Amino acid sequence: MDRRVREPIYDIAHLGHVELLTPAFDESLWFFTEVLGMEEVARRGGSAYLRAFGDYALYTLKLTAADRAGLGHIAWRATSPAALERRAASLEESGLGEGWVEGDLGHGPAYRFADPDGHRMEIYYKTEKYRPPEDLRPALKNQPQKFPARGVGVRRLDHVNLKALDIDANSGFLRDRLGFRLTEEVRLDDGRQGAAWMNVTQKSYDIAYGGIDAAGIGGRLHHVAYALDSREYVLRAADIFLEEGIFIEAGPAKHAVQQTFFLYVYEPGGNRVEMISDIKLLLDPDHETVTWTQAEREKGQAWRTIMPESFFTYATPLPEEAPDG
Amino acid sequence: MDRRVREPIYDIAHLGHVELLTPAFDESLWFFTEVLGMEEVARRGGSAYLRAFGDYALYTLKLTAADRAGLGHIAWRATSPAALERRAASLEESGLGEGWVEGDLGHGPAYRFADPDGHRMEIYYKTEKYRPPEDLRPALKNQPQKFPARGVGVRRLDHVNLKALDIDANSGFLRDRLGFRLTEEVRLDDGRQGAAWMNVTQKSYDIAYGGIDAAGIGGRLHHVAYALDSREYVLRAADIFLEEGIFIEAGPAKHAVQQTFFLYVYEPGGNRVEMISDIKLLLDPDHETVTWTQAEREKGQAWRTIMPESFFTYATPLPEEAPDG
Amino acid sequence: MDRRVREPIYDIAHLGHVELLTPAFDESLWFFTEVLGMEEVARRGGSAYLRAFGDYALYTLKLTAADRAGLGHIAWRATSPAALERRAASLEESGLGEGWVEGDLGHGPAYRFADPDGHRMEIYYKTEKYRPPEDLRPALKNQPQKFPARGVGVRRLDHVNLKALDIDANSGFLRDRLGFRLTEEVRLDDGRQGAAWMNVTQKSYDIAYGGIDAAGIGGRLHHVAYALDSREYVLRAADIFLEEGIFIEAGPAKHAVQQTFFLYVYEPGGNRVEMISDIKLLLDPDHETVTWTQAEREKGQAWRTIMPESFFTYATPLPEEAPDG
Amino acid sequence: MDRRVREPIYDIAHLGHVELLTPAFDESLWFFTEVLGMEEVARRGGSAYLRAFGDYALYTLKLTAADRAGLGHIAWRATSPAALERRAASLEESGLGEGWVEGDLGHGPAYRFADPDGHRMEIYYKTEKYRPPEDLRPALKNQPQKFPARGVGVRRLDHVNLKALDIDANSGFLRDRLGFRLTEEVRLDDGRQGAAWMNVTQKSYDIAYGGIDAAGIGGRLHHVAYALDSREYVLRAADIFLEEGIFIEAGPAKHAVQQTFFLYVYEPGGNRVEMISDIKLLLDPDHETVTWTQAEREKGQAWRTIMPESFFTYATPLPEEAPDG
Repeated sequence: MDRRVREPIYDIAHLGHVELLTPAFDESLWFFTEVLGMEEVARRGGSAYLRAFGDYALYTLKLTAADRAGLGHIAWRATSPAALERRAASLEESGLGEGWVEGDLGHGPAYRFADPDGHRMEIYYKTEKYRPPEDLRPALKNQPQKFPARGVGVRRLDHVNLKALDIDANSGFLRDRLGFRLTEEVRLDDGRQGAAWMNVTQKSYDIAYGGIDAAGIGGRLHHVAYALDSREYVLRAADIFLEEGIFIEAGPAKHAVQQTFFLYVYEPGGNRVEMISDIKLLLDPDHETVTWTQAEREKGQAWRTIMPESFFTYATPLPEEAPDG
Repeated sequence: MDRRVREPIYDIAHLGHVELLTPAFDESLWFFTEVLGMEEVARRGGSAYLRAFGDYALYTLKLTAADRAGLGHIAWRATSPAALERRAASLEESGLGEGWVEGDLGHGPAYRFADPDGHRMEIYYKTEKYRPPEDLRPALKNQPQKFPARGVGVRRLDHVNLKALDIDANSGFLRDRLGFRLTEEVRLDDGRQGAAWMNVTQKSYDIAYGGIDAAGIGGRLHHVAYALDSREYVLRAADIFLEEGIFIEAGPAKHAVQQTFFLYVYEPGGNRVEMISDIKLLLDPDHETVTWTQAEREKGQAWRTIMPESFFTYATPLPEEAPDG
Repeated sequence: MDRRVREPIYDIAHLGHVELLTPAFDESLWFFTEVLGMEEVARRGGSAYLRAFGDYALYTLKLTAADRAGLGHIAWRATSPAALERRAASLEESGLGEGWVEGDLGHGPAYRFADPDGHRMEIYYKTEKYRPPEDLRPALKNQPQKFPARGVGVRRLDHVNLKALDIDANSGFLRDRLGFRLTEEVRLDDGRQGAAWMNVTQKSYDIAYGGIDAAGIGGRLHHVAYALDSREYVLRAADIFLEEGIFIEAGPAKHAVQQTFFLYVYEPGGNRVEMISDIKLLLDPDHETVTWTQAEREKGQAWRTIMPESFFTYATPLPEEAPDG
Repeated sequence: MDRRVREPIYDIAHLGHVELLTPAFDESLWFFTEVLGMEEVARRGGSAYLRAFGDYALYTLKLTAADRAGLGHIAWRATSPAALERRAASLEESGLGEGWVEGDLGHGPAYRFADPDGHRMEIYYKTEKYRPPEDLRPALKNQPQKFPARGVGVRRLDHVNLKALDIDANSGFLRDRLGFRLTEEVRLDDGRQGAAWMNVTQKSYDIAYGGIDAAGIGGRLHHVAYALDSREYVLRAADIFLEEGIFIEAGPAKHAVQQTFFLYVYEPGGNRVEMISDIKLLLDPDHETVTWTQAEREKGQAWRTIMPESFFTYATPLPEEAPDG
């Protein structure tokens, strides 16, 4: 038997929640609740806590009023208390650990850290599962919440996509310290990693460093993605965004990388949000990373969809808004 | 931190392949290749090896000529060589282990065993991944094979569903010995488990004991399921089965349990085959089993779809065909 | 040139609106507005006037409080003022004409009549087209109204389906007097017409006499149907009905006759309502009627879907509620 | 009653067939049969006659070997023999009539003419309806042919889209002489019609003059369109075109004008072919033309899809290939 095969690490279960910062809190809240069809489960300080109907946890989005759009933090759930301790110890060792915090609404103690690019993250295990009130009780008890036939009706948080100055360094950090697996990547002609898609679940990705942050700002968000059941629902989302005056940047169309079906819009606070479907399962425990050359990447999307320039340059916070931008 | 939480076992990666026995080999082969759109990758002895276009392994179905319809064996892939050894040791200890075999086309050494009901199974790790010939090379290299726009066009093997005399015993065996997680179950009024759905992946199930084998035969198959991308493709499959004269037993409709979208047909050899979509992800590492009471179960499918009696009684081999039936 | 070909009559443009009677007005109104996603455009006396977002006319459903569920009347729009006069003259001659009425909200003078079975109908030409208020203005001006991302979101009125004691007589009346074309029919072994589907548009049917009224009551409604864009939207409607506790009688599934995709529910007032998609176009000006024998009809729906007995017997008003029932 | 309302003309039933010229006959034939899934019903001289499974007539596409890509002719079916005579008389009077021809495979005598731009057209009434051979007999007899689960599987011919030097003149000709109705148009700032969509059926268009022929060649084709049942099937077509190496020019996406869902490819002979779904019904007999200003038109497609320059300039024959180009 081949002894070189390393035992995989299964310490991170999945993406838990994302905190988005918005300079237009009320409008952003309208977007997520009325247009996307999410539920607000709590309000604390300047933050609203929001959930999609299929999310099992209390919430997956923390929307926080701020001066600028951008990413607050990204939270990962560990697979067990011991897994959490193992990862905290490894992060501590990495020098990028920031230490434990008490927790927040809906989850227990969390270990905070940042990736090399400065995106703030945390890991936690203990989780409050959602218990619906009477009016949101589902007809079938194997579903966390009644399906809200309102707006787009997103099902669940899917992934985050970040900009980074040095993608090799950041993807390597997540792999080494947290056990992420690199499922697809772009390798530029100069040898640098141009983009990296990684998973901890059996979805083909849970996080991506989608492109190099040419502006050199650090800690920037390309987008956060919510999943829909099929391509038709992504098309229907576009119909709804059109009616509601939401800025559609690109799609619906099919990515060549990962083959997911995408639709990108800007929520009123300025953050890019993706509607996604057809994320593939990667059940193979020794899946080999798919590497796209720069030339292959430049062929664009699967169906030759023309992407606007902003798709490659726009990220939050914007350069003019960034603290030192 | 809560010390009572047991570390999950991640030793089984996924369902690897299923061997079906058919008394009508040529007609069954036509069904899987021309109607379902699968590819035959090899023929050995009385068996054809078949794959769906999204399967990463060489094949997921072994179709074997036999006197009677039924299940040959079910194969599970381990997550690593060490995981395979751990599971073999545990099975050995269980008294239901049968020992190692050399392997078969497409995979390395396998440890053979049977569940308490007599369904023959094996675990292996080493796997031959599919390398398409020129005419089946996909346009996008992150896909194992060109999409065959022929027939139904199933994407990948999804799960197996078995009959068993004692479901508690069988589901308990898979949980204890292989680390399967019980995601949903039916608990009868008399206290027995009436059905059990279990997973090793993050799909909400990979195997089910779908009902008690009232005929008391043992080792019987309810169905094997192949996955499609969305509900519309399951409807389209029904259109195709209608045109091709394939017996449609039930569906398309939506299960209450697991909420999957189903369509059941009999392949020409007599085995029931399911077209499935909308299998949900269970990312929660401490997901609590959903237990349906007998009364809840008797409410039927999600949309009150009337199921034919055969759905509850028909399994292969048929009683009159079973060795001692 | 073949002189036997009769010039078709194009005097009736389409089904204009349907009046439904409900003994549960508030609940029925909730069903049509909140569950189906229709808009109430006016309230007059005991009636609410409702529209689907794709209807070009002011409304297509008049919902009227009454002691019993059932059909109020069915209104057809003529293709021109002259066409209206021609049809009124023909109806007058038939002995089933009732004379002119002033019109109602949204349309001009109407000629009233009843089919031989006693279903009350009218024809009108002059029509008020819908002009949306600011908050319902669509993003694209070639659409009558903003798409309401609320509930099912039905697009437009499609057809009505009636019970009748003598189907030959009723379908013949519509053909002879109004120029309806018989597109499909069931011919019973005893020579009687068992069901008849007819169109005036190029949809494959606009009205059907769906079955013989064995209860012998007369003037009964089997269902009224609203159209959705595709099968997936009909499935989604079933998901919503499940969550909202609406009684699902049959479907979603595919009819053999006409091949439409159907879903039948009872609105809270007791009338059956169909969600329909995939109604085919019949562009052939000399389309030959498709005749199904009794034996063919008894084969059931396209995919062998089992229909509940109520589908064949339930109609409004119910026998116990009918005036002389 | 309003006497100013003109009685509509219903003399043209629908688009009957289109003849395409191809300099790559074998490759074009492969495209239509293997990639689109059409059937070849006959071969005569240098022409193949092809049908989609839902077409009621013997064929809807005549594919003819030629030096250059482009349009052969467009054939319209009349609603009756008398209607054919009426239209022939009117065309005769117009000065653009060319006289009667004997007919071709599948239809009777046809009156030939050209629109002012030189697109060759004909009208006929007598039609051979398709009778499937044994292996193409459908399971349901209300369908002309068995659904071929091969390739895209287009259902029926939908429309043609032409370039013209003077769109007002051409759309006016079809309206005045043949009774076409102008459903949507673009009106340029200089007062000229920039594009015109017209119907004879209750589909929202059957022919369009999609843009001004800036090259000034005359008689050019923008595209011919085949219909699919829903948007998902158009997406699936894109998946198949990608695998088969067919050039995808634009889409899948949603038009603002007419709101149809589109996908444009070039068949191997160079002609643009559209896959279309969601063509709306226009049941209103006095539908008012929707006029888009130049500024409105320049906003582009419904979801801001970026169209390649070729979409506005490419038409067959190409300038360099045109007889006098």
